[in-house]
This record gives sequence, structure tokens and C-alpha cells, in this order.
Amino acid sequence: MDKILIINGPNLNLLGVREPGIYGTVSMDDYLNALRLDYPGLSIEYFQSNHEGEIIDRLHDVGFDPFLRGIVLNAGAYTHTSLAIADAISAIERPVVEVHISNVHSREEIRHRSLISGVCRGVIAGFGLDSYRLGIEALLS
Amino acid sequence: MDKILIINGPNLNLLGVREPGIYGTVSMDDYLNALRLDYPGLSIEYFQSNHEGEIIDRLHDVGFDPFLRGIVLNAGAYTHTSLAIADAISAIERPVVEVHISNVHSREEIRHRSLISGVCRGVIAGFGLDSYRLGIEALLS
Amino acid sequence: MDKILIINGPNLNLLGVREPGIYGTVSMDDYLNALRLDYPGLSIEYFQSNHEGEIIDRLHDVGFDPFLRGIVLNAGAYTHTSLAIADAISAIERPVVEVHISNVHSREEIRHRSLISGVCRGVIAGFGLDSYRLGIEALLS
Amino acid sequence: MDKILIINGPNLNLLGVREPGIYGTVSMDDYLNALRLDYPGLSIEYFQSNHEGEIIDRLHDVGFDPFLRGIVLNAGAYTHTSLAIADAISAIERPVVEVHISNVHSREEIRHRSLISGVCRGVIAGFGLDSYRLGIEALLS
Amino acid sequence: MDKILIINGPNLNLLGVREPGIYGTVSMDDYLNALRLDYPGLSIEYFQSNHEGEIIDRLHDVGFDPFLRGIVLNAGAYTHTSLAIADAISAIERPVVEVHISNVHSREEIRHRSLISGVCRGVIAGFGLDSYRLGIEALLS
Amino acid sequence: MDKILIINGPNLNLLGVREPGIYGTVSMDDYLNALRLDYPGLSIEYFQSNHEGEIIDRLHDVGFDPFLRGIVLNAGAYTHTSLAIADAISAIERPVVEVHISNVHSREEIRHRSLISGVCRGVIAGFGLDSYRLGIEALLS
Amino acid sequence: MDKILIINGPNLNLLGVREPGIYGTVSMDDYLNALRLDYPGLSIEYFQSNHEGEIIDRLHDVGFDPFLRGIVLNAGAYTHTSLAIADAISAIERPVVEVHISNVHSREEIRHRSLISGVCRGVIAGFGLDSYRLGIEALLS
Amino acid sequence: MDKILIINGPNLNLLGVREPGIYGTVSMDDYLNALRLDYPGLSIEYFQSNHEGEIIDRLHDVGFDPFLRGIVLNAGAYTHTSLAIADAISAIERPVVEVHISNVHSREEIRHRSLISGVCRGVIAGFGLDSYRLGIEALLS
Amino acid sequence: MDKILIINGPNLNLLGVREPGIYGTVSMDDYLNALRLDYPGLSIEYFQSNHEGEIIDRLHDVGFDPFLRGIVLNAGAYTHTSLAIADAISAIERPVVEVHISNVHSREEIRHRSLISGVCRGVIAGFGLDSYRLGIEALLS
Amino acid sequence: MDKILIINGPNLNLLGVREPGIYGTVSMDDYLNALRLDYPGLSIEYFQSNHEGEIIDRLHDVGFDPFLRGIVLNAGAYTHTSLAIADAISAIERPVVEVHISNVHSREEIRHRSLISGVCRGVIAGFGLDSYRLGIEALLS
Amino acid sequence: MDKILIINGPNLNLLGVREPGIYGTVSMDDYLNALRLDYPGLSIEYFQSNHEGEIIDRLHDVGFDPFLRGIVLNAGAYTHTSLAIADAISAIERPVVEVHISNVHSREEIRHRSLISGVCRGVIAGFGLDSYRLGIEALLS
Amino acid sequence: MDKILIINGPNLNLLGVREPGIYGTVSMDDYLNALRLDYPGLSIEYFQSNHEGEIIDRLHDVGFDPFLRGIVLNAGAYTHTSLAIADAISAIERPVVEVHISNVHSREEIRHRSLISGVCRGVIAGFGLDSYRLGIEALLS
Repeated sequence: MDKILIINGPNLNLLGVREPGIYGTVSMDDYLNALRLDYPGLSIEYFQSNHEGEIIDRLHDVGFDPFLRGIVLNAGAYTHTSLAIADAISAIERPVVEVHISNVHSREEIRHRSLISGVCRGVIAGFGLDSYRLGIEALLS
Repeated sequence: MDKILIINGPNLNLLGVREPGIYGTVSMDDYLNALRLDYPGLSIEYFQSNHEGEIIDRLHDVGFDPFLRGIVLNAGAYTHTSLAIADAISAIERPVVEVHISNVHSREEIRHRSLISGVCRGVIAGFGLDSYRLGIEALLS
Repeated sequence: MDKILIINGPNLNLLGVREPGIYGTVSMDDYLNALRLDYPGLSIEYFQSNHEGEIIDRLHDVGFDPFLRGIVLNAGAYTHTSLAIADAISAIERPVVEVHISNVHSREEIRHRSLISGVCRGVIAGFGLDSYRLGIEALLS
Repeated sequence: MDKILIINGPNLNLLGVREPGIYGTVSMDDYLNALRLDYPGLSIEYFQSNHEGEIIDRLHDVGFDPFLRGIVLNAGAYTHTSLAIADAISAIERPVVEVHISNVHSREEIRHRSLISGVCRGVIAGFGLDSYRLGIEALLS
Repeated sequence: MDKILIINGPNLNLLGVREPGIYGTVSMDDYLNALRLDYPGLSIEYFQSNHEGEIIDRLHDVGFDPFLRGIVLNAGAYTHTSLAIADAISAIERPVVEVHISNVHSREEIRHRSLISGVCRGVIAGFGLDSYRLGIEALLS
Repeated sequence: MDKILIINGPNLNLLGVREPGIYGTVSMDDYLNALRLDYPGLSIEYFQSNHEGEIIDRLHDVGFDPFLRGIVLNAGAYTHTSLAIADAISAIERPVVEVHISNVHSREEIRHRSLISGVCRGVIAGFGLDSYRLGIEALLS
Repeated sequence: MDKILIINGPNLNLLGVREPGIYGTVSMDDYLNALRLDYPGLSIEYFQSNHEGEIIDRLHDVGFDPFLRGIVLNAGAYTHTSLAIADAISAIERPVVEVHISNVHSREEIRHRSLISGVCRGVIAGFGLDSYRLGIEALLS
Repeated sequence: MDKILIINGPNLNLLGVREPGIYGTVSMDDYLNALRLDYPGLSIEYFQSNHEGEIIDRLHDVGFDPFLRGIVLNAGAYTHTSLAIADAISAIERPVVEVHISNVHSREEIRHRSLISGVCRGVIAGFGLDSYRLGIEALLS
Repeated sequence: MDKILIINGPNLNLLGVREPGIYGTVSMDDYLNALRLDYPGLSIEYFQSNHEGEIIDRLHDVGFDPFLRGIVLNAGAYTHTSLAIADAISAIERPVVEVHISNVHSREEIRHRSLISGVCRGVIAGFGLDSYRLGIEALLS
Repeated sequence: MDKILIINGPNLNLLGVREPGIYGTVSMDDYLNALRLDYPGLSIEYFQSNHEGEIIDRLHDVGFDPFLRGIVLNAGAYTHTSLAIADAISAIERPVVEVHISNVHSREEIRHRSLISGVCRGVIAGFGLDSYRLGIEALLS
Repeated sequence: MDKILIINGPNLNLLGVREPGIYGTVSMDDYLNALRLDYPGLSIEYFQSNHEGEIIDRLHDVGFDPFLRGIVLNAGAYTHTSLAIADAISAIERPVVEVHISNVHSREEIRHRSLISGVCRGVIAGFGLDSYRLGIEALLS
Repeated sequence: MDKILIINGPNLNLLGVREPGIYGTVSMDDYLNALRLDYPGLSIEYFQSNHEGEIIDRLHDVGFDPFLRGIVLNAGAYTHTSLAIADAISAIERPVVEVHISNVHSREEIRHRSLISGVCRGVIAGFGLDSYRLGIEALLS
């Protein structure tokens, strides 16, 4: 069975808790359950970490796996500060799609610059949790 | 029947002709035909112009139509230079999704800044012509 | 009879529709009618376009007319991006007054830079629709 | 009787003396006399100082006076360097209109940035001494 | 017979009228007549527009014509603001030579940056109307 | 008896009046009374001025007094524009603690740069009027 | 009993060892013992890590605890590079006070920019180890 | 008898007191006495103020006096922040020579930019108190 | 026996795998074996981590060891983003030599700025894996 | 007989040797021979130097010669770094045309800024060795 | 007999020839003769070169001579581009005074930055040829 | 016998003389003697010049010599200002290693940017005179 890995970066363990005015009130667990129902033929794995290094480790672990269709990565704030994650994406073989829940371009200036967009397959931002589903769609097509 | 409008900006009339190494060899017409087959219950309209002003005019024309689910906009180079299109997007009521065929972030510096991203519902970039389909998906969900 | 031309740039056809919290609810037509009553001895002409090129064309058309007292120009977003309009203003003989409905200096950074201010006779910004009347006053005195 | 206060900042005591090629040869006194004749029902007060602190003091003194229609402020060079005057304008209740005799945008780069425009009601620049009259008009309407 | 197309951008319809101190007093029509006499075996076509979009349309129309030796483009102010024209030049097959009547480098800072130079065959600036003739020479050799 | 001098810069005479949503409704006088009760063995002097020069004069007057434990300085907007006050702080012998009522770092960009922080003993910002008390604590320990 | 958590970021485990000319020779353990004697009714917890991710984890762990009065955070170098810690501070409910032992504003340029100041309750810098005590005072008042 | 005016700006009343390692230990009074002995035929007047406004006032007072050979101005920190003093220098008729005791170019970055140099007759910096004498020499020759 | 520690930062565990066109096909293990043969009298230890915090921890662990001749550090992408590692290098006593396999100066702009070079003993870049050997040479001499 | 001087700057002695992919394989000597045949009535002199000072010396030597029609200058890398050559061009009386073999605008960023363009008669770039011939044409017309 | 060396940089051999509107019509030779009459007890040597390297060579040659009172250096355009001359000034033992004939601060932006001012004893600019005499005065006192 | 050329740029003829606190007291001659003893089978040539042009000339002279293993270049201050030397390095065939005696990254900002690093084989900085030996090692391996 084909696999997809969703990686969430720092603070995204708080989804459903943090600033609900922006991120809504659905938890990531509930959202993943719904996603898996939508894609019964696909193994959707999930990994979250607040540690830059652990995200890199995980990208290395899965990034050469021929059964992985790709990675949907919401690197959170590391999007804007981590050149090391960008290097990890360049180094691995499986495609990575960058996603964001909010429209980063309507937030503060510092969130307009992404260090990782240039080495990802593509970018999807601004569609709430649905950005993850669109990221999967992008990898499957 | 619900409608979606796809707007293509400058030079995108050359799709299938221009720099095929980057944009592939499928013409927009062929792609639209395929899209319409995929979404039989949806009226997918199409507009292309090399004129900044015509894009604004069209956004005004359709932007208050309650039967329009939204607009998928690939503003091409105007993405990076047109504050007037950004203002048009702010002014209308229907949601606009910004799409790009290539990953603008792996191209020249000037294409990393978007004047319109901040006022769009969201952004999708880098998935070839499939970016349009993902844009429709984003509007429908 | 002396003439004044008011030129409105992109999106200003939506006055009275767009973001009423900022621009009020009076349409440009109603405002022009009131203005013409205030200045019975003056022919107040009006031109609006979303097209940078049409604004330039019109500036050329009227810019050498000895019966024109001057032009009141609200170039909207083109204020900040159009060097071509600035060149048109430099090239013609009749004076141009730059006006803005809102106080552009209390809006986003990009609206603090005007490409056309330096070649206009003067600038008036922030007085709602009344900015146009003040522009006429400036040209008449 | 309604009041208006005109405040002139540094070096504007030299009006009619300084660089007549730019500022003309009319003194502020003569101009004020003419203005008062034009607005017989209005008390037009005048204050000039070369001291940033005195301008702030005066803004505080009059800024809560319910009989004051507003302040016409030509802050001269302090326009570009005084955040403290900007804070005073924010703090008081009466509206302030920023005026300039010359078109600051056609002068040196440093005069293109105003620290106070964003907190004023609006801005009028480039109409010679007539900028003051337009400032009064703006406050009265 | 081989063809050359000369494209003039915004405000260049005013040649011979605008700021004669800089641009001389010869009109473009007179100059074209003289040019055609100099190159009897060459069809020299001419197109002028103040509209960015029309310049792009025309570049597309002629840009794949095998009988066209090339395009001599004076994009005027769009030289400095139009990424869309740059993209059109990249997309077409015929060579484009950028020309300017004045020496843009001795004018204001904003005219020192060209968005289109990098995608043109070469650049010629500062030789008055003679810049067009040099542009033709460059395309013929 | 040991002394402390609190210096307040421009517009801080309006404390309790200005933008109460930010600064609260307690006046500086009431706050000073409370402070003096908390520190009965300390003479707490107070000086406020909207004049940059008067603040410098006062720093010179007290800055070499061996009985002064130090100065708690809220320079208001001069924090961001006055190199002269910074030089005065460098020149005197008594320590100066920079304080701010609001968190300057969550306000506009221009308030993120302090010209005086580098020459003060330390900085305290964001604790409302309590910032003054913390400044005294810092000087006493 | 009310609790306070002090978090120290990277390299601050070397306090008392590193560059004693700047940081003094008191170890953090000794300082904490002294602090606990000063605040007998308060539980002062301590956490140090060189790992950005562990600081985020800890902020999440304690940041919703109603018995925690707040967090005194010296993020060390992460102050200037970690947007992820800033996001964690925004996301949690308990107030955070940013402290620094040295006056960061008199050190290198890169230490003048803080990514976290804007989302903290306030900032205290430059008072040696005493900055922590002032941070506690700020949280208690 | 010809006159020269020496104007000293903020903090220069502390000469002989402030940071003697840099400025030496000679007071301005002693230095002026020596200067007057060197130039018996010249009336050397002296003015010092920490107030930007007072410096402007004084420049106006003396700046049109035909018996004044010129002004030697050490504007101290206002050199780098006062556009208003620069405007005063432009407005008056007598020549102004900018002097500095220390070599401002070997100090911090902010002291490398002078707002007033461009409107002075010339600049002399780095020769200790002797800079004043050289300034007088420059005015006399 | 004297010791040297080689520290490799993020993604350098992929040496021999990642982008062989740039980094060659030799693994770090093979290279270390060869190095140890070249320096039989030296204990060459090796540590690799993708975690910024672990690199700091390790620098602390070994940085005061009198038997360590020094550290050869290839911090990978952290070279350009980690002020915390720079602080760790400053804090420890043993010398650190910064090395890079590729010539960072011929790569993207962001890799031209190093946060750690200034606090290292020296820098060696561009000699492939041989950069490590040169780093050891530098420490031994 | 009228004269033209061609000056080539640093590294241009390597023409025909250096990076033939860009500059072709024709040597400057061969090209000059061809040029002289094309312009039999013109004395075409040639000077090459890698020394900034020698280029200045030569500009002085010939720059006041009334028989010189002008100078065709390819300053190579000095185009972007030598203000001294720019001053020499300003100082002499004969016109100078700046030429480049390659299109400098499609090369690295640093080659987009020319210190000398603003003081030359005009600029010609991108036409291979033919740029020199066009430069002569420009001087002759 | 004490010696002074005057060094003139690029293009200053043209003094009395070049742009007389700015530099006057006195040649350097005439000026030197006059200077030597004014300072009979001083050996005033003179050196001019358009070569950066020759200026450095000469600084080395004389810079350790105990009979040299100092060097008066007008580095012309090299003032703004030559870090190598700055290093030479740092390396030698005799003091160097930087002089300029014109007021560099009222010329183009690029002439406002000096690479050498920070390592000179002081700076004198704007007094025509008299700047040299003031430079000698500065060295003698 | 294989050859290596060491090129030293401006002011490096003063090694052993200049600022011994930084550069030590060993002269380049003594150092070269020691080096030649260390590499008996290698011809180590040496060239020093303060002239940018002479360094370029020499690079051309030796840069195509098949018996030259490479060049060790310490371009001194020209490292930061000479694009012409960078072009020479690009043009020649033999590899060039950039070396610096001091750690340029811990010196002033302007020395952090190298114009030549990107076109050299690699960079070695900070190891005193030993940097040259490491440069030779890098070329030999």
C-alpha cells in the first residue's frame, strides 16, 4: 500500500488549542481520522515535533523509501528560519509539498520569506486544515 | 449550476508553446477540456489577458456574482508588480485562489515577492497545470 | 468655460461599493453631481479606467488643452507602481494634483511610496471624497 | 466663534526671507491677514516655533479644546525626524492636517518620509502658502 | 524582404513634443522616413502603445515570424516596472534589442534598474533617436 | 537620604489622559505618591519635559551628584530619535535605567530601535507604570 | 503555592564559567538558592536546555497551568533566531517575561533584534543575575 | 571689528569633564581665551546649547549680520539627527563651517552620516579642540 | 595521546549519499579511517548530529578538556543560522576550526554569511573532504 | 584623418582565450584588422591595460585631442568598481561610449551596477565583438 | 628641516583644467609655490598619481620617516573605493590628514562614504585649494 | 619540478612591520625560507605587489602554465574591492586558493564580503602565516 507522511513542525501539537480564532477548533487527530476515511487505499502516517533536528532525522528516515508517495510538510515557524530542513529536503529523494494552514502572506513580514519553498515540489497555503488534503492530492496526481 | 472562473494573466496564452522545458507541452485548451470532464457539475469558465486592466475589469464583473464559487487566478508576472489587481481582489466578494504552474520560489528573487498573496484566500504553486485543479478543489471544499 | 478633469484610477469605479468602512457609501456619480452644483461656472469632466494605458492616453489627450485648468488625479494603486503615468504627467503642460480618499500614509508600507507625487503640482490625501474638491480648489487658486 | 490654529515649525519664521525662489516673497503675517479676511467667522490663531518641545507643548495646550475645529500643522523639517510630535498628534483629540508649502516629494529623499502623516487626518503639500488655506478648508468640511 | 519591428512604449508618441531640451524636436514619423531611406531593402514596421498589455500582444504576434530579423524595443518607463514584458521577450523566438533615447543611467535612480535588459539580446542607450538605427545595425550584423 | 530621579520624556505629561486603552487611567502623580510610600527611605524626585534639550540639561545637573542612586528614564519617543540624550547618558557618572510603560517591541517598527539602550545600565519595558518601580529596584540592588 | 518557572536557553548552563568578565562568577544554582530564600512563599522552578525544541516542549507543558504565575525566560541566542519559541509564547496562556543578564543593546548588532520580545509581557535586560529577580517581581505585581 | 561665532551643540558644555580619554582635559573657556589671544583683531563669540531649537534661533539671529565672517558649528549629536538645523544653515546668508573634535568616522556607524555637512561650506573633523581654530582659519581665508 | 574532535552538523550523515555531483561518493566512515591512518599518534573522535542543541551540548562536554587539541567543525546549514552554536564556541576554551566541504561562497547568497566564522580560530572551505584534514593540520601547527 | 581610440580594460587581453563559450574565439587583433578595413578613412587606435591607473592616464592623454572623434571604452570589471575612471571621463572633453561584449544585465547582480554609465555619452552591451563597431557608429553619427 | 608630503590621487593632475566651475582655475603648481612661500621653514613635497598602487607605494616609502610631520592626502575617487589605501594608512607611523577640495557631502551619494576617513588623523573638506593649507596647519599644531 | 606561486597583495610587503600585535613579527622572507625547507621537491615562487593591475598581469602570466600546481593568493584589501582580480581568476586555468593571515570574519564588516572567494578553489583564513602552508597543502592534495 502506498504511503504518505504528514510532518507537522513546532507548536502544531497545539492545533485545536492555540488561537482558535485563526486555526479553528478541530484537533489534528480528528482531522487525520477523517482524511484516512477519504483515502482508504493510502497509508497516511503522521509525525509531529517541536525539534528541528527530529524533523531532519525523520526526513532522512523516510526520504529514500520507494513506497512513500511523498511528504506533506507544515514546518511551522521553521519554514522561515531553518536552512537545515531545506538541506534535508534537497538531499532526500521523495517529493515534499510545503503546506500552511493560514495564509502566511497575510501575516507578519517575517513569515513572507520561506527558506524551504524553493526546494519543495510546491507550496499550498491558506486553506485551513484542508491544506493537508490538497497536499496529498498534489502528491497523488 | 455552480461556476468557477479561471483567470490567466500575461503570456499564459503561450502555454504549450513557451519554454516547454518548464511548462510542458499541454495547451490550456486541452487541459480545460480534461478539467471539465472531471467536474461535470461545475461550469468552468476561462479568461486570459495580457492586460492588467482587463484582469481587473473581469474581477469586478464576476466578483459579486453569488453563483460563482470563486476564482482561480494565475496572474503571471503581474503577481509581482500589480498592486491594482491586489486591490481588485480585496474589493470583490468572491474568494480568489492564487495559483502558479512553476514553483515561483525556485526562480529569480523578484518572483519570490507576491503583491497579491496576502489578499487571496490561499496560494498553490509548483504543481504544473495540476495547480489549477488543486485551486478548484480548494474552492469547492 | 474653464474645465477641470477628474481622473480616477483602478478599482475606483467601485466607490460606494468597496470596503464601505473605509470609503463611505457615497457613489462617485452622486459626489460629482454635488461638486458640479458647487462650481456652476466650471465644467467638471470625469474619467475612470482600470487600465494604466488608458489613463496615459487620456492625460495626453487633454494635457495640452489651454482651456483645461488642470487635472485632479487619483491614480489608486498605480500611484505606487506606475512610472509610466509619472512620465505622462511630466510630459504634458497642464498641472496635475494628486489626490487620495484615504490617508495613504496610515495604510501599508507599499502605499507610502508614490512614484507620481514628485511630478505633480501637489498632493492632497486623507479627506474622503472631499479630497477631490480640495484638489479643484488647489487648481483654481 | 470657532477657532483654527496654524502651527509652523522650524525655520518657517523666515518665510518671505528664505530662498525666495522656492517660497515666494510673501511673509506669513501678510498671508495670515489675507486669510482672516477670507474667513471672517473664524478665529485663526498662529504659532511658530523652532523648538520641537514647544510645538508639542502647544499641541497639548489646545488639543482638547472643544471650540477648536482643528490644527493646520506645517512641521517643517520635524516632519521627517520627530516621532515625539507624531505621538502628540495621536494623543490629542482635535484633528490635525499636515501641510507643506513646497512639494516635499520633488525634494531630497529624506523629505519623502514623513513620521507624522500617518497620524494626521490628512496631508496637503505643494501649493505654496495656499496649502494653509486648503488645510483650513479640509478642517471646515 | 526582411523585416524589423520598432516598438515604442508609453509616452513615446509625444516624441518631438515632450521636453525637447532632452529629446530634440524631431518627430518619430520624420525619423522613420529617414531610416527607411537608409535601409531600402528592409521593411521597417512601427508600433507604439501606452498599454503594457498591447506591447505584450504585439510581441506575441510577431515574435515567431521567421521573416522578422528582430525587434528594436524602447519600452520607456515599462523598462523599469514590467516583468510581464520581460516574460514576453523570454517567451518569443525573435531577438529583441533594448534601446533608449536618453542615457538612462544619468537620470533618476529608478531608471538605473531595468527588468528587461537581462532577457534582451543587448542594450543601446543614450544616442538620441540614433539609438534606433544602432539597434537595427545590431540586429542585422 | 539617597535619591532617585525619574525623568519622563515627551507626551508623558498626558499619562492618565492619552490612549487609556494602552496606558491605563492612573495619573503619574498618583503613581508617584504610591511609590514614595513604598520607599520611605528614598527621596524620589520627578521631572517631565517635552523638550529634548531640557532632558539633557537635567541629566547634566544631576548626573554627577554622589547622593543620587541613579536615574529612571522613560524618554518616550526620544528613545528612538535622540542621539543627543544618548550622549548625555554616556557623559554623566550616575547610572541610568531605561524604562517603558508599554512593550515597545509589540508596537510599530520604528519603536524597536532604541538609540539610548546601549548606553544605559539596562532596560525594562512592558509592565505598565510598574516599570518605574522595577527600575528603582534595579538601581537599588 | 504559587509557582514561577525560570527557563534558561543555550549556553546558560555555563553561567559562572563562561566569560566571567561579563557574567560574573556566581553559578545559577547559588543564585537560585538565594532567590528561593527571598521568596519563601513561592515555588521557583528551573529549567535549562540548549535545545530549541525542548524549550518549546517545556513552554507547552507549563503554559496552561493555572497555578503558574508566569515564566521568566532568558532564551540566550535563541532570542534572536527562534520564531518557533515566539510562536510557543503566543500560543500558551501564562505570561512570559523576557530577561537578559547583559545589556544586549550594547553588544553586537545581531543581538539588538529580538524575535520574542513582541510576544512577551515585557523585557528586562542588563542587570546581571538580578534580571531574574526583577522578572519575578514583574510577574508578581 | 570682524566677528566669528562659535556654536557648540549638545553635551559640549561638558568639555573637559566628559570622557577625558577622548576629549582631553582643557575646558572650552580656557581654549576660547587662548584663541582670542591668537586672533586679537577678531571678535570671537561663543554660544552653547543643548536645545536644537535654540541653536536654530541663534543661527537666525546672526545669520544675516554682514559683520559676521561666519559660524564655526560643532552640532554634536544633532549633526546626525537634525534636519532642522540643516535647513537653518541653508536659509541664512553667512557661511557655516562644520567642526568636530573627534574623528567621527572612526566612531559608531550612526556618526558617519551627517545631515548638515552638505549645506555647510566645509567640514573639519578629528583635530581635538584645534578643529575650532582650523574652522576660523577656513572662514578667514 | 592528543585528541581531535570532528563535529559534523545537519545532513552530513548523508555524505556519500546526498547530491554526489557535489560531495563525491566517499562516506565519512571511509574518510575517517584513512585520516586515522595518516595521524597514528592522534585520537580522532567523531560526532554527527542533526540537532543544534546536541552540537552545543557536545561542544560544552569537550570544550574544556586539556587533552583536546581542538575541534574541526562543519556546522552545515547551522553555520548560517545558529548564533547559539557561535556562543558555545565563544564560551569554551579549546580552539575550533570551521570547515566546509564545498566552497560556500560559490553557492547561494544565504551561505555567504556565517554566524560562527568570527568566533572560530579560522575557516577552511572548498577542498572536499580534504577540508577536514587541513583543519586538523591547522590545529596541530 | 579622424581618430577613434578603443580602450579595453582588465582581462580583455585574453579575448579569444577566456571562456570561449561566452566571448567567442576571435582575438582582438583579428577583429581590429577587420574593423580597420571597414573604416578606411578612420584611424582606429587601440589600448589595453589591466591597470586602472593606466586607463586613467590614457584617457587624460587623448581626452583633449581635437582630432579624436571619441573613445570606445570597455572597462571590463572596472565598470563596476572604478569611480576614478568615471571621474576621468567627466574631466575630459572628448565623448566616451561604454561598450560590453556580453549582456552584463544577464550576468551576476554586481555587474548590473555601472559606475561609469552615467558620465558616458551612451552604453552599448551584449552584441559580442560587434559592440565595438556599434560604438564607433555611435561616435561617428 | 621638517617635511610635509602632499599626495594627490586620480585626476587631480587636471586641477586648473577640469570642470573649472567647481575647482577654480589655479593649477596645483602655482598653489604649491604660494604654499612654500607661506611656510619657509618647511619642506613641502608633492606627489600625484592616478595609480592606487603607486599611492600605496609612496605611503610606505615615507610613512616611517621620522622627519616627516605628516601627509596631506587628497585621494580623489579612491577615497570612496580603496580599502587598500586605508590599510596603508593604518600600517604606517606618520599621521595622515584627508583633504578634499570640494564639499564631498554636497555631491553624489557615493561620495558621502569614505573608506579612509576612519583611519586618518582627521578630515578637511570643502575649502577649495585652501583645504591643503588647512591640512598642513592641522599637522603642524 | 612542480611549482607553486604565492601572491601577496597590497600592504603585505610590510609583514613583520605592520601592526605586529595582529600579524606577528616574522617577515615573509623568513617564512618563505622555512616553507621551502619543508617542501624540498617543490619550487615555491613569490610575488608581491600593491598594484591591482600587476596582480592581474601576473595571474595571466602564470595561469596557463601546466607545471604550476596552483596559486596561493592573499589579495589583502583587494579581496573585498577587486572584481577585476576575480575575473582574472575565472579566466585562467590553474587553481587559486584564497588565503588570509587573520580571521577576516572577526574584523570589520567590509572584510566579511569577498569578491574573489566564489571563483577560487577554496578559502583558508585565520591561521597566521601558516595559512600559506595550508594553502599549499590544499593544492598538493
